[in-house]
Amino acid sequence: MYTPPLARLIEQLQRLPSVGPKTAQRLALHLLKRPDAEVENLAQALLDAKKRVGQCQVCFHLSAEPVCDICRHPQRDNSVICVVSDPRDVIALEKTREFRGKYHVLGGVISPMDGIGPEQLTIQPLLHRVSQPEIAEVILAISPSVEGETTTLYLGKLLQPFTKVTRIAFGLPMGGDLEYADEVTLARALEGRREL
Amino acid sequence: MYTPPLARLIEQLQRLPSVGPKTAQRLALHLLKRPDAEVENLAQALLDAKKRVGQCQVCFHLSAEPVCDICRHPQRDNSVICVVSDPRDVIALEKTREFRGKYHVLGGVISPMDGIGPEQLTIQPLLHRVSQPEIAEVILAISPSVEGETTTLYLGKLLQPFTKVTRIAFGLPMGGDLEYADEVTLARALEGRREL
Repeated sequence: MYTPPLARLIEQLQRLPSVGPKTAQRLALHLLKRPDAEVENLAQALLDAKKRVGQCQVCFHLSAEPVCDICRHPQRDNSVICVVSDPRDVIALEKTREFRGKYHVLGGVISPMDGIGPEQLTIQPLLHRVSQPEIAEVILAISPSVEGETTTLYLGKLLQPFTKVTRIAFGLPMGGDLEYADEVTLARALEGRREL
Repeated sequence: MYTPPLARLIEQLQRLPSVGPKTAQRLALHLLKRPDAEVENLAQALLDAKKRVGQCQVCFHLSAEPVCDICRHPQRDNSVICVVSDPRDVIALEKTREFRGKYHVLGGVISPMDGIGPEQLTIQPLLHRVSQPEIAEVILAISPSVEGETTTLYLGKLLQPFTKVTRIAFGLPMGGDLEYADEVTLARALEGRREL
């Protein structure tokens, strides 16, 4: 159906998440119509990102430098570490512009079913960071799945001897309708109530 | 927010059709997690397809060879040419496995508003093909938009002196509900009625 180089491109594009045969065909035919330079830029950006982006030695966030921009930033608060499971979570939190401390990316959550124990995550380096005297607070910002809760409780126990440990709030999302919230979210919202 | 090589990759991915900032970020972070070879294969497939896929000299379908597989196929009927506006239409028709003739890709439809007249399309080469003695029928398979209809009528007049010219049927789609069909489709379905 497709001339071989086009078939191979469609096959490769189909490996991307949520790209099926129809979307892959549409993307490939679109790219064939674009100027050479545009396709070359995309190919080069792919190779370049893959080759140059690694992990920050301190916080394990994505970085093209040995130590990431956030860890090197002179105005950011060294005394607070926000612990997340994935680099995506750092990006989401940075978008809020609310947090001025540092991060620590675990690289996943504890999940015995998937063979992920504490030693598969960056918990040893976290422990080393938290044991430094300048640390005043560790904020645990891990999604409240079963594995996420396990990880939060595990880290809470582990880190409490060294510093204050807090976790982000769970409750009704802004703009959310109480009537349509699930029971677990509502129970969490009640439990987390604060005085006005 | 993003380390520079990652930012550039996200920017390039956002140029793809229906890929917004969120999808571009998801695709980029996915690719960073994949093995090097997979990303290199994708980059190579992009460059390779762009470099090698051109147009068939005969029918103007996408082809990595000077003459495409369909035009070179010894078992396909040389006497019938199906005229379409875009390579996508060839792919869609090939998927039906119903048509065993050859194709001709116009490269668009006549659209004076967009500055596309007959001379911007592959109509001269089509005329040359149709004037050959072996041609018994030309099937016009052009989408029924205003421009598509103009193109169909124009080609009908132009080609009728040389051979039989037909067009594909329009009517109720299979599985379609008569009640919900638009008036134009229903009118076309009535107009195109056949004896049982």
